[in-house]
Amino acid sequence: MKGLWLADRQLQLRRDLPIPEPIAGEARVRVLQAGICNTDLELLRGYYPYAGVLGHEFVGVVDRGPEHLIGQRVVGEINATCGQCRFCLSDNSTHCENRTVLGIVNRDGAFADYLCLPEKNLYLVPETVSTDAATFTEPLAAALEIQQQVQLHGGDRVLVIGDGKLGQLVAQTLALTGCDLLAVGRHSEKLANLEARGIRTGFADAVQDRTFDVSVECTGNPEGFAIALRALRPRSTLVLKSTYAGKLSIDASALVVDEITLVGSRCGPFPEALKLLAENKVDVSPLIQARYPLSEGLKAFAHAQRKGVLKVLLAMGDENAQQS
Amino acid sequence: MKGLWLADRQLQLRRDLPIPEPIAGEARVRVLQAGICNTDLELLRGYYPYAGVLGHEFVGVVDRGPEHLIGQRVVGEINATCGQCRFCLSDNSTHCENRTVLGIVNRDGAFADYLCLPEKNLYLVPETVSTDAATFTEPLAAALEIQQQVQLHGGDRVLVIGDGKLGQLVAQTLALTGCDLLAVGRHSEKLANLEARGIRTGFADAVQDRTFDVSVECTGNPEGFAIALRALRPRSTLVLKSTYAGKLSIDASALVVDEITLVGSRCGPFPEALKLLAENKVDVSPLIQARYPLSEGLKAFAHAQRKGVLKVLLAMGDENAQQS
Repeated sequence: MKGLWLADRQLQLRRDLPIPEPIAGEARVRVLQAGICNTDLELLRGYYPYAGVLGHEFVGVVDRGPEHLIGQRVVGEINATCGQCRFCLSDNSTHCENRTVLGIVNRDGAFADYLCLPEKNLYLVPETVSTDAATFTEPLAAALEIQQQVQLHGGDRVLVIGDGKLGQLVAQTLALTGCDLLAVGRHSEKLANLEARGIRTGFADAVQDRTFDVSVECTGNPEGFAIALRALRPRSTLVLKSTYAGKLSIDASALVVDEITLVGSRCGPFPEALKLLAENKVDVSPLIQARYPLSEGLKAFAHAQRKGVLKVLLAMGDENAQQS
Repeated sequence: MKGLWLADRQLQLRRDLPIPEPIAGEARVRVLQAGICNTDLELLRGYYPYAGVLGHEFVGVVDRGPEHLIGQRVVGEINATCGQCRFCLSDNSTHCENRTVLGIVNRDGAFADYLCLPEKNLYLVPETVSTDAATFTEPLAAALEIQQQVQLHGGDRVLVIGDGKLGQLVAQTLALTGCDLLAVGRHSEKLANLEARGIRTGFADAVQDRTFDVSVECTGNPEGFAIALRALRPRSTLVLKSTYAGKLSIDASALVVDEITLVGSRCGPFPEALKLLAENKVDVSPLIQARYPLSEGLKAFAHAQRKGVLKVLLAMGDENAQQS
C-alpha cells in the first residue's frame, strides 16, 4: 500500500508498505481522508524521534475486525492503551505509560491506505456528519479537553490566542459555553471566520492587560505565551494548548506573585466532539484550505508548511481528490 | 529611629529615620522581632526596584491606634489593600491592584523600631505563642496557601523540594494533611529537622520519576524545578512556591503532553497560621540559626546571605539580642 513514511526527519511516499494485519482486539481501517496537523509538521522538524507512517487525524471504513464494525465509517482515538497500568486503572488512560500513539509514538499512522487501531478506540461517525467534518474530530476533541480541565462560569472573560486551526476550533467550542470570549490573531481573513460566527476578535493590541479570567495559548510561540500571561488577572488560569519546539522561557516569579495557574492540555473526548459535529454547532468548512491525493502527499506537506495555511487534507481514494 | 534602609541595592543602617505616624485606619507597631526572608535577599539583589525600610516578617506591640489594640502583641498581613478595586471586591484582596506591601512595595517595612499597617491587617498573637514562634506567622501562612489552592486527598503522594526555611515550613504543614509526603534537599542536617518530626526525607535521587500527585518547588532554582517536574505523574500538579531571579526555562511541551498543572502560590492566611502555632503543631525553633540586634543589622544580613543558613532574626530591643 501507499503511505507517507517519516525517518530521520525525511518524509517519503512509499508504495511498498505491507497492508497491516490487525492483532487481537484491533480493527483495520481503510482510510478515506486524513488531515495534516501541526504536530505532524513538528515531528518532521524532529520534535519527537518518531519513525513510521505519519498522521493521526482521519476518517475511514473498517474492513477487518468485529462484525458490527465492518463497513462502518469511523474515527479513532489516537492513544492505544494497555488497560492495565496505573494510569489506565485510574481513569487516565490517555496517559497510559505503555501507550502507542497513532502516527506519533510506535504506531503507524493515518497517511496511508490502511491503519490499525484497537476496536475500543473507534467511534462510529453519525450519518449526518460529513467525512470532511469528521476528519476534524480529533482536533475538536482536543479543543474540548479545555472544558474538562478548567471550570468555566457564565460571563467569565476568556481569551484565545491564535487564529490557526487549533485556535479556531478552541474559539468555536469556548463560544458555546456562554463565556465572554475574545479571540486574537494576526490574520484578518482568518479572524473573519470567527467573526462570521458571532465571536469577537482582534489583534494583540485588543487585549487589555490583567483583565481575563482564562487565557488559552494556541500559537505555540513565545509571543503568544507572553500575550496569554499579560492578559490575566491575578489568580486566573492560562491553558497551554500547543506544544513548543524547544524550551519556553517564562517569568516564573510573575506566576508566583500573581498566583497564576498554568494548565497543560492535550487530547480530549471523541464522543463530545462527534456530538457537536452532529448537532452542527461547529463549522469546520472554513478551515479546509486544500485537498491532495495521498499520492501527492509530499506536495500536500509542502503546502501545509507554508506560513498561515490552515487545514490541508489528504484523500486516500486518488480519483476523488482535487486541490481546492 | 533606627532602620535598615535599602536604596540602589545598597543596605544601610540609618539612625535618622522619623518615627512614622499612622494615618487614619492604621496602627503603629513597636517592632519586637523580625525575620530575614529570602525575598529580602532578592530585593537586595535587585529582584524588585524597592527603596525604603526592608522587612516584612515581624512581631510587635501596638503603641498607637485603636484602644483595644494598644499594648497588644501583634503580627501583620503584609498586603495593605485599598478595599475598593475589583480584586478587593472579589475576595482577592491580597492581589489588590493598589496595594502597598510591607517592606516590598511602597511601604516602609519591619527592620526598624516602628512600622505602620492598617488596623485590619493586624492579628493578636495568642499568649501561648512565643514571640519567636510568632515571627514565623507570615512564612507559615504562605506555606498554608498551598492547601487553599490545591485540594489534597488522604494518601496523595506529595513531594517537597528544598530543605531551606520555606521548604521546611511547607513540609511541616503538608505533613499535617495526612498525605504521603517526601521532602528532599541537599543538607542532611536540615533534613534531620524534618525526620525528627516523622517526615520522610532524602536527596534528589530518592525521587522516583512520574510517581507523585503533587510536587512543591521551594528552592527557587532551575534544578529544583526540574526535579519537581520529573517527579510528577501525568495530570498532576506542580506548585511554584519560590520566586526566581530572572527567567525560568521550561519544557512547555512536557506540560502539555502530560497535562501538568502549574500553580503559582504566594501569601496565605494568617489566622490559620496562628492557630497552628497556638496548637503547637509546627515547630519553628530548629529554623532559628542566629539573632542580632537591629543595630547589627548589616552583620545579620551578611550572615543570612551565607550559603545554607536558615532563619536569622533581628531583635529591636538591643539589650536582649545575642547571637545563638
